[in-house]
Amino acid sequence: MNAIKMPRGFRAAGISAGIKQRGDQDLALVTLERAGPAAALFTRNQLLGAHVTVCREHLAQSGGRVRALLVNSGNANCATGDAGIDDARQLAGAVAERMECPASEVLVMSTGVIGARLPMPKLLEAVPRLFDALADDGAQEFNRAIMTTDTTEKRATRTLGDARLVGVAKGSGMIHPDMATMLAYLFTDAALGGDAHAMLTEANQQSFQRMTVDGDTSPNDTVLLWSSEKSGPASLFERALTSVSGELARLIAKDGEGASRLITIRVSNAPTEDAAAQVGRVIATSPLVKTAVAGRDPNWGRILSAAGRAGVPFDPNRAMVRVGTSVVFADGRPHPANEGAAARYLADEAEVILSIDLAAGNATADVWTCDLTADYVSINADYRT
Amino acid sequence: MNAIKMPRGFRAAGISAGIKQRGDQDLALVTLERAGPAAALFTRNQLLGAHVTVCREHLAQSGGRVRALLVNSGNANCATGDAGIDDARQLAGAVAERMECPASEVLVMSTGVIGARLPMPKLLEAVPRLFDALADDGAQEFNRAIMTTDTTEKRATRTLGDARLVGVAKGSGMIHPDMATMLAYLFTDAALGGDAHAMLTEANQQSFQRMTVDGDTSPNDTVLLWSSEKSGPASLFERALTSVSGELARLIAKDGEGASRLITIRVSNAPTEDAAAQVGRVIATSPLVKTAVAGRDPNWGRILSAAGRAGVPFDPNRAMVRVGTSVVFADGRPHPANEGAAARYLADEAEVILSIDLAAGNATADVWTCDLTADYVSINADYRT
Repeated sequence: MNAIKMPRGFRAAGISAGIKQRGDQDLALVTLERAGPAAALFTRNQLLGAHVTVCREHLAQSGGRVRALLVNSGNANCATGDAGIDDARQLAGAVAERMECPASEVLVMSTGVIGARLPMPKLLEAVPRLFDALADDGAQEFNRAIMTTDTTEKRATRTLGDARLVGVAKGSGMIHPDMATMLAYLFTDAALGGDAHAMLTEANQQSFQRMTVDGDTSPNDTVLLWSSEKSGPASLFERALTSVSGELARLIAKDGEGASRLITIRVSNAPTEDAAAQVGRVIATSPLVKTAVAGRDPNWGRILSAAGRAGVPFDPNRAMVRVGTSVVFADGRPHPANEGAAARYLADEAEVILSIDLAAGNATADVWTCDLTADYVSINADYRT
Repeated sequence: MNAIKMPRGFRAAGISAGIKQRGDQDLALVTLERAGPAAALFTRNQLLGAHVTVCREHLAQSGGRVRALLVNSGNANCATGDAGIDDARQLAGAVAERMECPASEVLVMSTGVIGARLPMPKLLEAVPRLFDALADDGAQEFNRAIMTTDTTEKRATRTLGDARLVGVAKGSGMIHPDMATMLAYLFTDAALGGDAHAMLTEANQQSFQRMTVDGDTSPNDTVLLWSSEKSGPASLFERALTSVSGELARLIAKDGEGASRLITIRVSNAPTEDAAAQVGRVIATSPLVKTAVAGRDPNWGRILSAAGRAGVPFDPNRAMVRVGTSVVFADGRPHPANEGAAARYLADEAEVILSIDLAAGNATADVWTCDLTADYVSINADYRT
């Protein structure tokens, strides 16, 4: 058992509360002895899980100070109306009572199937057991208890002098019978110093916003940055935040439903970084590019064509497309002599890089996705049978 | 043999010139005795087939008057550089010589694999045979000769008093080894009266712009409206143009690669028609919605969630989702009692309607797509093996 220490001040736990039918862990808790500063980013979907409404309220009321975080998996508490919001508030109240703190210092989050009410008696009954399970090294238990269709645990850590940054996430693939959620948590004991929300927004733009499995977003997507402030400010903290977020984003993309390959779309020499990321996202969501990788085909035409509809002006005659290090399109024409090496690269590597040089500026961005396989369709089409 | 008459003044033909390996028809021609007014819309992709450049030039030079249209399938003449543009010009010149007209009155178009030069000797040698094959009732031969991965011919006709409108199209699914193209032709003997380009743009917005197979566009996509002016102006011509274009768009969506269902996404009570179409397009390109239909699952959560990320504000608690006539989500909650009937509808019907009422205005739009099946992945991933 690989016990992962949380940053100083944090304790974490994950147990089975009986939401999931097979007895898997499904209820997780993280606490601090004293409230610490937190910032959260939520889905931009119009359809919102109950937790988005309640967390926004609590963060506003507490001035962004958080004592505890409760997360359940197996049920997203979404499309459950006002009753679902009341359920979320009641759970926060139960945790607050144990912590002897205002309910506004407790965040509650949910992921799993939508359209069904939370099994409140089971959850409330499990809360004392959850507190009993809290441990300094409970990061892995927490991680396991927030998983839904994830096939791998997803963590990344950085040491920053005396302080640490521990990232834990669950993936964004979609799930029977409805949608799953991306949840990402960035716990640290480093004092945040600056504006936590601005820091998190910047890191998010360079990481989770550059990752896609199938272009869909969930009503519950949430990223949380939370500090215990047990250590002083860490130099290069923002760089570490972006780096851990990027690592988590790649773990999520790699674990996309049915995926056999992590794909990095690397766009270079774009007019701006936003333009580079935009071109990357269009390529990364192209079913034709994603099926080509599933078929191990270095299909420069699909990459170039997807780039061409991203709304970013460039001259295809000056663009260059590479699969790994093999140039498959340059000088306005394909380079078929290199396609054999490119196909072998796609067959041999579990993590592949598709690059396009737009020759239209100096900016670069990476976007991460996975291939689109028949397994994806069967997971998402045939789950009823 | 089902001979389809072209509108008065037009003659059409389709023959095998030997581009396709199996001897299928691959070269098509339509001519007029006197040049008639035409308008064309081309792909907005940055990557452009050679024909887009040459057709734009010719239409500008001729003032939009066209005598002949040559189309080849099997080779898109795309990513072929300046040499490919010269090839297209040479083909137009060969047709112009036979017609004894300026080359600018000849349009040439291509669809098929990209990155390879046209087999010019074969094509030039076939031109005389193609002229010999011209016939008043050659619409079907023309249709067959422009097909690539299409599994069905795609035509729609309307009678407008003395005049007729004949639409012929080929589909937008993507093809071994690269991408195919949507080509749509609207031939009529009705005098156009107004601004042909404006008319075509409007019809296009309500038809081809509301159809998607996989969200990808091709470098060669082209829609052409062309009149012989052999008849007078037809009342309600613009309505017929939109109607024929819509019918062709649905035929293309229905013939999407691997598709088992034509899906109409019907968005109602949106703030504006553009907003309704935008919501419809996001739902229609959602892999989760498309795989759910492939799996015959009335998955309201995926529909609502896709709508929620379209950037159009609405209140999910007031929205209603229907599968066929079955309400599966309303009043902020799912209606599981209706899901059985909805699932049977998805299983039984080859053309299904998914509706979402946004309760956020009065505007409505339909968008057409097809389901996403394991066959789509296997066509697009495994074509090499």
